Amino acid sequence: MKEKIKTIAFDADDTLWVNEPFYREAEKKLCNMLSDYMPAEQVMEELYKTEMQDLEWYGYGVKAFVLSMIDTAIRISNNTLPAATVQDIMNLGRDMLQKPIELLPHVEETLEQLNGNYRLVVATKGDLLDQERKLKKSGLERYFHHIEIMSDKTLAEYTKLLHHLDCSADNFLMIGNSMRSDIVPVLELGAYAAHIPYHMTWAHEQLPYTPQHERFLELECISDILKHLL
Amino acid sequence: MKEKIKTIAFDADDTLWVNEPFYREAEKKLCNMLSDYMPAEQVMEELYKTEMQDLEWYGYGVKAFVLSMIDTAIRISNNTLPAATVQDIMNLGRDMLQKPIELLPHVEETLEQLNGNYRLVVATKGDLLDQERKLKKSGLERYFHHIEIMSDKTLAEYTKLLHHLDCSADNFLMIGNSMRSDIVPVLELGAYAAHIPYHMTWAHEQLPYTPQHERFLELECISDILKHLL
Repeated sequence: MKEKIKTIAFDADDTLWVNEPFYREAEKKLCNMLSDYMPAEQVMEELYKTEMQDLEWYGYGVKAFVLSMIDTAIRISNNTLPAATVQDIMNLGRDMLQKPIELLPHVEETLEQLNGNYRLVVATKGDLLDQERKLKKSGLERYFHHIEIMSDKTLAEYTKLLHHLDCSADNFLMIGNSMRSDIVPVLELGAYAAHIPYHMTWAHEQLPYTPQHERFLELECISDILKHLL
Repeated sequence: MKEKIKTIAFDADDTLWVNEPFYREAEKKLCNMLSDYMPAEQVMEELYKTEMQDLEWYGYGVKAFVLSMIDTAIRISNNTLPAATVQDIMNLGRDMLQKPIELLPHVEETLEQLNGNYRLVVATKGDLLDQERKLKKSGLERYFHHIEIMSDKTLAEYTKLLHHLDCSADNFLMIGNSMRSDIVPVLELGAYAAHIPYHMTWAHEQLPYTPQHERFLELECISDILKHLL
């Protein structure tokens, strides 16, 4: 493997830095705001259902999340939601956009060691402006040859990315926390994929099984990849 | 000029297809919804003020526009806005995301004639998913070597784009309807820029003057560029 890989792509949210806990924190606050209408567990179910319906139109990221939260809250309240609560929900989004970046353990030292030996790129979903801002705030920009912000991480999108990077699947490794987005389509493409589980992963990104594949690696921590590559 | 240009970048919204009229249409509907609180002209002023404040956080595109509309409406209503009106505002956004594409006159024949003689790219702001969707619906994808969706169109962003395209400023022409986004930063960079005025342009994209520059062209219609390039 070491001899083959030339380009390594990193997922960003929950692979390089903390993300999902901020969504769960906002969700919890939403449940509190709506506790007069419905128990928290049901609110979460309704929100997830709305997000799945909205995905096609809004895509990923904080703005989409806020719109889905407002949509859910209005429906749950049976059109009685006070305007002030809508404003509170929008403020949850504004807070998320302003969070400082918390790098995950060993991220910087791992990039430092791979840099120079491999071409490093970021391949992430989410909102264009927000991801660019997070990358700038992270201080990690200088390690990356290219940043790809993708509307979705499907086989077609990865095919475009590899074409764009002028890289064959044989020479490509993707590292990320989402089985659905970072692993499955990359293996389908014939490339290498390394999974680093994060303690908190959105249901939409999970798989009910672990892939068995000769080009698949399961890691505990991002720095474990160094054993395979250096 | 003909001998120098190798890569031509096109703005998308209101250069290749109709966009701004859909925003103005939604704005008009918003004014109607809020007519009990404030006259239309003032609502539009308040909305523009909100959009300018939100730009840093939300960026460009329909989702940002919807969030700014909701924000404005709640403020104007003094926190009394009914939830159903919030829902109506969100529906304005959903309608915008589902609009069919209306190509502007002579777009397709111009691309057809330039294709093969020049490397054509799209350089557009806005929402990643929505712009990708519009490009697909437009049927124009096949003319373009590369699609660049930018969080903003500043000198720094254009510098990155040229680097990415491995193109020098001397060989680059940008065509678009926005003086602020498509013309000024491109001329600053030392590249060529052609302006095609659109009958409806967002105040934020306008300039109070017309640039005087040897690398600047003012066109009436997109097909006028053919006289300069073929």
